[in-house]
Amino acid sequence: MESTNRGVTQADIDYFTSAGINVVHSNEQLGGTYNTDYFNKYHGASQTIVFPKCTSQVSTILSHCNNSHISVVTQGGNSGTAGGAMAQQHELLLSLRDMDRIRDLDVISGVLVAEAGCILETLDEHVRKFEYIVPVDLGAKKRCMIGGNVSTNAGGLRYLRYGSLHGNVLGLEVVLPDGQVLDSLFTLKKDASGYDVKQLFIGAEGTLGVVTAVSLALAPKPQSEQLVVLGMDDFVTIQRTFVLARQLLGEIVSAFEFWERRCNELVVQYEGYSSPLSATHEFHVLIETRGSLARHDWEKMDLFLARLRAGKLIGESRVVRDPAEMEQVWLFRSQMANAHMKSGCMHVYDFSLASKHQHELLRAVKAHLHRHKLYGCEQAAVRDVTFFGHVGDDNIHLQVIADEFGGAVEEAMEPWVYQWVGAHKGSVAAEHGLGAHKGQFLKYSKSPVLVDVMKALKRLLDPNDIMNPGKHVARA
Amino acid sequence: MESTNRGVTQADIDYFTSAGINVVHSNEQLGGTYNTDYFNKYHGASQTIVFPKCTSQVSTILSHCNNSHISVVTQGGNSGTAGGAMAQQHELLLSLRDMDRIRDLDVISGVLVAEAGCILETLDEHVRKFEYIVPVDLGAKKRCMIGGNVSTNAGGLRYLRYGSLHGNVLGLEVVLPDGQVLDSLFTLKKDASGYDVKQLFIGAEGTLGVVTAVSLALAPKPQSEQLVVLGMDDFVTIQRTFVLARQLLGEIVSAFEFWERRCNELVVQYEGYSSPLSATHEFHVLIETRGSLARHDWEKMDLFLARLRAGKLIGESRVVRDPAEMEQVWLFRSQMANAHMKSGCMHVYDFSLASKHQHELLRAVKAHLHRHKLYGCEQAAVRDVTFFGHVGDDNIHLQVIADEFGGAVEEAMEPWVYQWVGAHKGSVAAEHGLGAHKGQFLKYSKSPVLVDVMKALKRLLDPNDIMNPGKHVARA
Repeated sequence: MESTNRGVTQADIDYFTSAGINVVHSNEQLGGTYNTDYFNKYHGASQTIVFPKCTSQVSTILSHCNNSHISVVTQGGNSGTAGGAMAQQHELLLSLRDMDRIRDLDVISGVLVAEAGCILETLDEHVRKFEYIVPVDLGAKKRCMIGGNVSTNAGGLRYLRYGSLHGNVLGLEVVLPDGQVLDSLFTLKKDASGYDVKQLFIGAEGTLGVVTAVSLALAPKPQSEQLVVLGMDDFVTIQRTFVLARQLLGEIVSAFEFWERRCNELVVQYEGYSSPLSATHEFHVLIETRGSLARHDWEKMDLFLARLRAGKLIGESRVVRDPAEMEQVWLFRSQMANAHMKSGCMHVYDFSLASKHQHELLRAVKAHLHRHKLYGCEQAAVRDVTFFGHVGDDNIHLQVIADEFGGAVEEAMEPWVYQWVGAHKGSVAAEHGLGAHKGQFLKYSKSPVLVDVMKALKRLLDPNDIMNPGKHVARA
Repeated sequence: MESTNRGVTQADIDYFTSAGINVVHSNEQLGGTYNTDYFNKYHGASQTIVFPKCTSQVSTILSHCNNSHISVVTQGGNSGTAGGAMAQQHELLLSLRDMDRIRDLDVISGVLVAEAGCILETLDEHVRKFEYIVPVDLGAKKRCMIGGNVSTNAGGLRYLRYGSLHGNVLGLEVVLPDGQVLDSLFTLKKDASGYDVKQLFIGAEGTLGVVTAVSLALAPKPQSEQLVVLGMDDFVTIQRTFVLARQLLGEIVSAFEFWERRCNELVVQYEGYSSPLSATHEFHVLIETRGSLARHDWEKMDLFLARLRAGKLIGESRVVRDPAEMEQVWLFRSQMANAHMKSGCMHVYDFSLASKHQHELLRAVKAHLHRHKLYGCEQAAVRDVTFFGHVGDDNIHLQVIADEFGGAVEEAMEPWVYQWVGAHKGSVAAEHGLGAHKGQFLKYSKSPVLVDVMKALKRLLDPNDIMNPGKHVARA
């Protein structure tokens, strides 16, 4: 349903300016990153952006927009990949870039209160000085902002160890669409007093209000870190290795990543990195541990590797304990999406799926595209079909690299792949969000009653439909 | 606001019976535990209880009650302490006792799907056979049911290690007040597709619908457990010890409890247990570790104790590694509430409060009651004021033991103590819930905008106000 809200006029701009709010307006479309999302797939058409400096300015903006029926799209670091932060037509862009204050850090309880515009890496560097880390970590950490992490329910690389933002976010400050400030910026861990309203905004992608500040339970900074890269011949071995790691590395496992051969080759080819292992393997696995006593962690790793070797589970292994070398391996891993992008037009899918179905999905996609003469035949439009993922949190990233966006490839893939994932009890969006496009596929993994409740919540909290209209569950 | 819903008639009973639903009705009030809550403070007046055996029977019941404007109070193991599961007047009781099937256990991913009426300890014993544990654990585990744990957002003893149910619950099956089944019983860890609706029911205390099944992320069963009991002279030492434990025991700490001298004495006096330490101490601390390699865990404990002794932080310590002895210590700890109850009429408060204010609260309560000539003077109505708590999750339990319930003691304490806690940025209910009584104090720790949103959510999801009316946020 197209929004009936109106566009921004000169009078609106004058109103914001008179309230001391920084506005940038262009008669053409805005330049910079404001109209391009991270994977260069989604493009916006916005001409006006506001940069509030404080919560009360956000309140002034939303109150005005709600009264005047102007739609608002919230932007953080603009590292989203699902188009959720792109203005589709004449919406006002609201950037939280200038709300980047750390409001509080309790060094005894390990609770951080930060404004939405704080860059994730900046927060992590700050709290490390006090022996903590931010529990969420992802490839875009140099650019993404904590408000956007919360709004997209970012999962990231260490979900396995530190869990979900639904558990780690202790409180939020949110400006509701009518300009009211919902102060639920609590800093306490246990709380059973009323409905946990803040949870609705975690993953709402800016459709229910603007998250202006976040209270976050931090994790203790590890005293010891190491990682191991393993080469494997088949996917089943990854699962067996995961079970062994949970048993022998136990509480120190902090990440468990895999990627298949072609992903490795693309990073070498397009990013110029050396492969972390010397031989070629069907699958690479990266396991990281974080603990409090290096000697113990090293011994656990040695015991674990001895068991893997005794069981003939691995072809090659490389333990890395030098910090600079560890960083190199993580850099290699973090270049995966970029390398794919450079190799062609990346149709990217981000699914949750039970581990037993993950490899089956990859094979099904290849066979499906082959049937459509799009893959594995002469003049095929698809160059590569790859996947990599986070073991233990059910999340895989599937890439279909084609000559162009949309077209026959998208037609063959969608909704077919979402139906496949739904039929195998997966989720159509694991950590990238629904954004501009995927709401229409929500029905394949969520029941009609659940979708109806979502839509009712949206109507309740945003009756004028000003917040990111036409996206997310609005498309369901 | 008094509910205008009607009571249960013979025609309703006939309807349920004809639908194959087990109904127990009494012309007097029902006996058994149905009308008495765990701490014997709240009493119900119900005459009719239904025992559905499956989700569709719950749906039949709610649909009928919604159409007929009959109020419903949901009961699980009836181990609540805030009166939330007591029928205040003529509500229908709905017991989930007979919905106790384990629907699924995925031994690779560690995800359990169980019906609401499963007893917590039964679930834990079951999954232990497959090398997992249920992450939530609390004193009432032999009696409480997983649906009630979710509905009260139970925190428990090992929150510090395993986190909140908001993070560990992966999915719920809920029957909405109109009888529609909200199936969000997902079993995947990462999911960013739409609003996380299930979160609203975690801690809703039966006011938004009936939780009929739960999908839960399990934790790996520890390979090694040990605990240490420490005697300490003052509260500040507890906090310093906590900081050291986080550093030296790190990832293996699984519980960190404290109780003050009088709590220890009451358990010895009323439950007949031996004190876990030989001398008398102002505070006892119990630290438990769970790890994957006993030798490493023991060495970490030894290093930790050496640091405590070098810093002269502890008077007496006792490391326990024998399973039977560990169980004895935990039994001692778990008798704390019972011992208080036997010593008099227990006014119990369950707060979240920053650690730095916790001891201050105890002193403030004693001084306040003394000023009212209720404590520390001749013929004082209050026998004891005690506290114990879970360090690291901000939760303390405060007990005021008096000659009777209500009366001058309650008048002096309430709302005064809730105001005090609110003024110190605490929460008026940490893990027991708001129940029948505490909703009225919610305003001291939650903002008016937040309370308004809670009330709007209640109206949206339960427009006829049939679910546990007059309790929880309805009293706010």
